[in-house]
Amino acid sequence: MKFESDAKVAEKIKKIGDRVVADIFGGNAPEVTLPVRAASNVHYNKEEGLLYLGNSISSRNFLNFAHTRKFMQTMLIAAKCRELLEKGKTASIRELYYELKHNIQGTKENTFEGQDESDPLIEDLETMTDSLREELHLKADSSGILFGKLVIEDMGDRIDCSKLGKSGLAIPSIVDDYKFLECDADYVLVVETKAMVDRLVEEKYHLNNNAILVGLGGQAARGARRLVKLLNERLKLPVYVFTDGDPWGYYIYSVVKTGSMNLAYESKRLATPQCRFLGMTMADIDKYGLQKVTEKLKDVDKKRVNQLLKYEWFNKPQWIKELKSMLSKGARIEQQALASKSLEFVAKEYLPGKIARKEFID
Amino acid sequence: MKFESDAKVAEKIKKIGDRVVADIFGGNAPEVTLPVRAASNVHYNKEEGLLYLGNSISSRNFLNFAHTRKFMQTMLIAAKCRELLEKGKTASIRELYYELKHNIQGTKENTFEGQDESDPLIEDLETMTDSLREELHLKADSSGILFGKLVIEDMGDRIDCSKLGKSGLAIPSIVDDYKFLECDADYVLVVETKAMVDRLVEEKYHLNNNAILVGLGGQAARGARRLVKLLNERLKLPVYVFTDGDPWGYYIYSVVKTGSMNLAYESKRLATPQCRFLGMTMADIDKYGLQKVTEKLKDVDKKRVNQLLKYEWFNKPQWIKELKSMLSKGARIEQQALASKSLEFVAKEYLPGKIARKEFID
Repeated sequence: MKFESDAKVAEKIKKIGDRVVADIFGGNAPEVTLPVRAASNVHYNKEEGLLYLGNSISSRNFLNFAHTRKFMQTMLIAAKCRELLEKGKTASIRELYYELKHNIQGTKENTFEGQDESDPLIEDLETMTDSLREELHLKADSSGILFGKLVIEDMGDRIDCSKLGKSGLAIPSIVDDYKFLECDADYVLVVETKAMVDRLVEEKYHLNNNAILVGLGGQAARGARRLVKLLNERLKLPVYVFTDGDPWGYYIYSVVKTGSMNLAYESKRLATPQCRFLGMTMADIDKYGLQKVTEKLKDVDKKRVNQLLKYEWFNKPQWIKELKSMLSKGARIEQQALASKSLEFVAKEYLPGKIARKEFID
Repeated sequence: MKFESDAKVAEKIKKIGDRVVADIFGGNAPEVTLPVRAASNVHYNKEEGLLYLGNSISSRNFLNFAHTRKFMQTMLIAAKCRELLEKGKTASIRELYYELKHNIQGTKENTFEGQDESDPLIEDLETMTDSLREELHLKADSSGILFGKLVIEDMGDRIDCSKLGKSGLAIPSIVDDYKFLECDADYVLVVETKAMVDRLVEEKYHLNNNAILVGLGGQAARGARRLVKLLNERLKLPVYVFTDGDPWGYYIYSVVKTGSMNLAYESKRLATPQCRFLGMTMADIDKYGLQKVTEKLKDVDKKRVNQLLKYEWFNKPQWIKELKSMLSKGARIEQQALASKSLEFVAKEYLPGKIARKEFID
């Protein structure tokens, strides 16, 4: 697989190595510097609506005994990623770990003892090179499903996503190489559960409403987030997010929109600040008479609502109202609870009505 | 959606209702009978290589106060399934719960308080009608992915699964209506992890080796199990299963081959007794020099190995040897550990070699 960015990313990795070599020949302790990836260094940029890493920098020095092992590991990972880039290969982060795990000659020490040692260093390399791991040719776990009037070119194959029956396209972890050949869709509907996507497909919602359906199956995988971003950016499609009416669903929305705390350094390329929240809302419960099919808010749910209330990116009048209403009702509501009206209700009334009336939360 | 079995299944449900009506008009307590679904009533049929339910029968009597609520719920679920069958609709088991959850007129009682009340009764209805839940038009969670030289007709769409790039077809929960239009594959390779499928697709394994790849993503979902069964039954394709070399991987294999304890009543339609286990095996560790990339067997792993040793369907010389070897080595090995040889190794040497030499465990 080849990306346009390959040569650029390989060059960035080479520069890290060049500096280390220069340090060695200059008689200095080899060192690399990288942004701090801790919550204390995560900032919300209100204008852009994105989470970013701040300016705190840390360094890793080979001759500092506390850094030596990590330094060695960082070099191994950087070298392997450059090799992947040059060979046009990709690897899962687990494969990378196994590829690099070996005995250090003349010692009883292994290069890596577990994937928990290699994963954070991959994130380090991402921030050091200002690249997504996918641009380093590394893959995370994939999940997500797509349906709609969209024709994609993937590895030379032409895939018409409106002709995939009720099965759909599995969204891979790397989608940067997708070419969007044709698109006859008016918007992207991002849906929390795959079961709800099944429902919409059975009702031919995507075909009747010119919608691209992206099913997440819970928290959005990186591939699905990147794909939504690309659909918004390249095809200028509006994006609506449809989750359960609970703090977990709202956080899924905020990750798609704003980015995640853990991966704040990647928001710029994974998040879609233009996306809008469609439902389920607390107002839906009264409006559609769903009182009997709500679930009681548990303590863990309440705790999470209170956390969201503290996040700067939920600090907007509509969201505060929504979250406080959830606490005062003591209830949450699932997407699939709409089935209590009728199986067709979500496709025939709920979604088209909300979209026509532009009933969104931003 | 319509299946050939629809009328037959609807008729079976009607008969249950007919009997209840006859009971009522005959002045008898309404009653339904059903097979006991407990481990004590699960038997391994050695000749067929399948798990079956035994002959123990229980009854549910409306006038027995302990049964009344369940009896009412059973009737609600049966009636709704018949309605789905007649309308040609399908519903997720969660939607079914929400569709049926309502207040009982004149009382403070709800028909259902949680999905944990409706799910077991769906299984009851499956055994009572000797039907898969998919034949009752109910859907479980789907997961799984497919690639290969196979053309499927799904809801009128013609899907060429060899032309889906690196994305692949998402396997839905209902596959009974798939029509296999063309097949140029020699065998089905069932793979535990999706990441390994990604690897094989990157190496074009499916195209170069005429293989249909089915990625499970952990324990096999019902849709994936049923699909493998249909590929074996209708297209007469041999099925090889490729999992991690640990008790969890071996159990995934046994569920695909023999059926699961929980769903023993469905083995006949979900399990593929002809399938064969390809790897990873304990012998692989020495043969391919993978000692450095094994993981230590934890207590929970050891306990699970000892459980498998007690299952009748693992009571075969090769499996006993394999499981005991795992205990004596104190090690397990993952599919992706093969990356320590090289990324291409699994596709270029490991799999083709094993298949050519017919190195299987039955």
